Amino acid sequence: MPAYNPVTPELVKALADIAGKGNVVTDAEKLETYSHDETDASVYGHNPEVAVLPQTAEQVAQIVKLANRERVPVTPRGAGSGLSGGAIPEYGGIVLSLEKMNRLLELDKANMVAVVEAGIVTNDLANAVQAEGLFFAGYPMSLQTCVIGGNIAENAGGGKAVKYGVTGRYIIGLELVTPQGEIVQLGGKLVKDVTGYDLKSLVIGSEGTLGIVTKAVVKLIGYPSSKGDLLVLFKTAKEAIDLVPIILSKGLTPTSIEFMDQLSIQTSCRYLNESLPYENAGAMLLIELDGNNAAQIEADLIETGKLCEANGALEVYVAEDRNNIERIWNVRRNIAEAFKVFSPTQSLEDIVVPCSRIPEMIPELERLGKKYRLQIPCYGHAGDGNLHATLVKDPAMPQDVWKKNEELCLEELYQITVKFGGKISGEHGIGIKRREHLKKLIDPVELGLMRAIKNAWDPNNIMNPGKIFV
Amino acid sequence: MPAYNPVTPELVKALADIAGKGNVVTDAEKLETYSHDETDASVYGHNPEVAVLPQTAEQVAQIVKLANRERVPVTPRGAGSGLSGGAIPEYGGIVLSLEKMNRLLELDKANMVAVVEAGIVTNDLANAVQAEGLFFAGYPMSLQTCVIGGNIAENAGGGKAVKYGVTGRYIIGLELVTPQGEIVQLGGKLVKDVTGYDLKSLVIGSEGTLGIVTKAVVKLIGYPSSKGDLLVLFKTAKEAIDLVPIILSKGLTPTSIEFMDQLSIQTSCRYLNESLPYENAGAMLLIELDGNNAAQIEADLIETGKLCEANGALEVYVAEDRNNIERIWNVRRNIAEAFKVFSPTQSLEDIVVPCSRIPEMIPELERLGKKYRLQIPCYGHAGDGNLHATLVKDPAMPQDVWKKNEELCLEELYQITVKFGGKISGEHGIGIKRREHLKKLIDPVELGLMRAIKNAWDPNNIMNPGKIFV
Repeated sequence: MPAYNPVTPELVKALADIAGKGNVVTDAEKLETYSHDETDASVYGHNPEVAVLPQTAEQVAQIVKLANRERVPVTPRGAGSGLSGGAIPEYGGIVLSLEKMNRLLELDKANMVAVVEAGIVTNDLANAVQAEGLFFAGYPMSLQTCVIGGNIAENAGGGKAVKYGVTGRYIIGLELVTPQGEIVQLGGKLVKDVTGYDLKSLVIGSEGTLGIVTKAVVKLIGYPSSKGDLLVLFKTAKEAIDLVPIILSKGLTPTSIEFMDQLSIQTSCRYLNESLPYENAGAMLLIELDGNNAAQIEADLIETGKLCEANGALEVYVAEDRNNIERIWNVRRNIAEAFKVFSPTQSLEDIVVPCSRIPEMIPELERLGKKYRLQIPCYGHAGDGNLHATLVKDPAMPQDVWKKNEELCLEELYQITVKFGGKISGEHGIGIKRREHLKKLIDPVELGLMRAIKNAWDPNNIMNPGKIFV
Repeated sequence: MPAYNPVTPELVKALADIAGKGNVVTDAEKLETYSHDETDASVYGHNPEVAVLPQTAEQVAQIVKLANRERVPVTPRGAGSGLSGGAIPEYGGIVLSLEKMNRLLELDKANMVAVVEAGIVTNDLANAVQAEGLFFAGYPMSLQTCVIGGNIAENAGGGKAVKYGVTGRYIIGLELVTPQGEIVQLGGKLVKDVTGYDLKSLVIGSEGTLGIVTKAVVKLIGYPSSKGDLLVLFKTAKEAIDLVPIILSKGLTPTSIEFMDQLSIQTSCRYLNESLPYENAGAMLLIELDGNNAAQIEADLIETGKLCEANGALEVYVAEDRNNIERIWNVRRNIAEAFKVFSPTQSLEDIVVPCSRIPEMIPELERLGKKYRLQIPCYGHAGDGNLHATLVKDPAMPQDVWKKNEELCLEELYQITVKFGGKISGEHGIGIKRREHLKKLIDPVELGLMRAIKNAWDPNNIMNPGKIFV
């Protein structure tokens, strides 16, 4: 553990002087709120010594300067909806929550750009721009709770990445408070920029270890006027997954190709008290197409449906009304939450492999489940090669056996992933959860290059320490 | 100037041992080839002490290790078609040319990915994948001569960036030889990856200062089956430019919106011995749309044409045959080369501003031209806000007056650009040409963050020194 200083009463007073007394939290019970994200709090949770809720970038900068001077760790926090422990103050110190910096500052229609504070709920941004016929295409599945700063920290993916790419593609400018407490503007309202190193892209996905994003310039596109969905049922998970590279290599460009196996569907339906007529299918693909030409979408839906039928689908439904399709998407969106409720002892994974290798993953997951006596339901963004395999503890398994089997199973899963040309995280990040595995799997040269940047920017290692690497 | 050691006969022998004797150039006349790029050689040119042409990444790594040990600068070189001096060995030392590493290693149709060596001519890659119905959408205007390694070093833009983005969007994996001579693989055949820092995006656009790219994994998309072009004539440059934000804000997604003023058109026509019936127009927009739905493109072309007519266009031509349209694109592509031939004393610029601010640039360019007694023809990727204003010396102006006026004019042009929320380079890079200006214009905090990375990765400053910053 790095040698940090404790948060003193003097430091708390200094924080209150900067952010206002009402924006400094020291009450132990209230601090608990800032001790965890969506990972298992009993494993990863840790209380901060103090939480502070600044309202301006200048306040953020002053807080970071102070922390850097006093050698106190600072953990930036968005919505706390992360899945790898990125917002957990593992070494105590200060949690710096962006929750009060949540404004849409500017909607610049001429440049098709929104300027937002980092704490804005992603869905608030999405709705505000949609009202103007514009589209923020880079949002993740958790948009109703997550905030844009967190999306940027993790370079979040989401359901539309097959066609539109991930969050980072739409972030063309950032305001960053550096680990030494300087405010710097990176990029701008520019779609092209090679004026020096692309620091913006380096910061995106760096999990808050290279500074605190306080503002973002978000590129928008026109809101697609039409969309259509196919729900395709299969007897087995393997048959569903086998179809993904077939669809993609035909040159069709779905917005999403989401995959759910039977256990995922049933668990989410149970959680939502939802009853789909087809929840007994062995697996489903949920395929969405969008665009501005309804006839073209219709034609592509039909072609995609025919491909599915010709390749082993049990049934192909073209969703006729938005209400029905929204119900199915809701099932998809709530899988992670449902598993958390019904199987709190679990490990939600985020592996990503080249799309052509996805079919090989399903038998491997089945093999691993048997070998380690775990259920491994699987769902995710199959069109990106990004699968949320989830290791679930059998209630009868003793805790110590679970811990050992989980660890061994993860190790094997990750090795298979790497062997297939994949990586251990597609959109959730390394955080605390995967850092030991990363260390074992990554080329030491690559890790060395990352560490060199971290050390150069944050010599005292006060900025979100312990994430990605210790 | 940093303290480097000279290239000794022993070092030359060691290079020959690594790359083969026939791949080491020491002949002064032959070295001249490696002394310049497309910037003015009389201003920026500098001979290397030796050039070496490795054939494998392992050889590149051995050469860099040797250079790092001996404190000799290494300047990586692609096609030498750069426009900011990025491939010029300002401090002598070794030019490492990738010209012999020019293979298409793999065309992976299932994953829609090509794996190439860095020295492959961009057009060779484009043609090879097009033959399979695939499309590399990230190429620059100079694709017939440039190589993919250079495109990556500069994060090149190009004519299709309005719709498809720049080179970097399509580079999903890199093989990099670090400044300390280690080989590392970054990214992979993955469309999503948040497994640690995005070093790949940091390297893209870093102008060869952070290592030598030896291999790239290039994401392909389906080749659009249809395209259509509009050629729109205007009385004045201002009227043409005023239309750009109008088109973009209507939600139309052209592939390109290219702008050419009268002098640019006429100079290129003269160079090509081409005669367009409309070369006396005050300015032109060349607008391309593509996609897989011919009817939709037709409809969008008509809508765009109507917008132009309603906003001051003199004439709108829908190009009926590919031959004619290719002639016009050829005029556009050859403007830079034409100015080089007819006005060798000039400064080709690459400013980029938010699209809504482009109309304000044209009167500023006219004002600057008058003030400094220069012709400033202008052309470029208006749809990206990226304008290649070119300062051209009047033959009658004494050389010393030109130098002074060029410098003052650039300074003022850049200040206006920054005032408009822009940057001094959209796709050509900083290189040697703009580094002094960058130093004056950039936030010292941002420059400090860049330098910190450079120092951390390349403590002996042997990797392409003098580019971006000294």
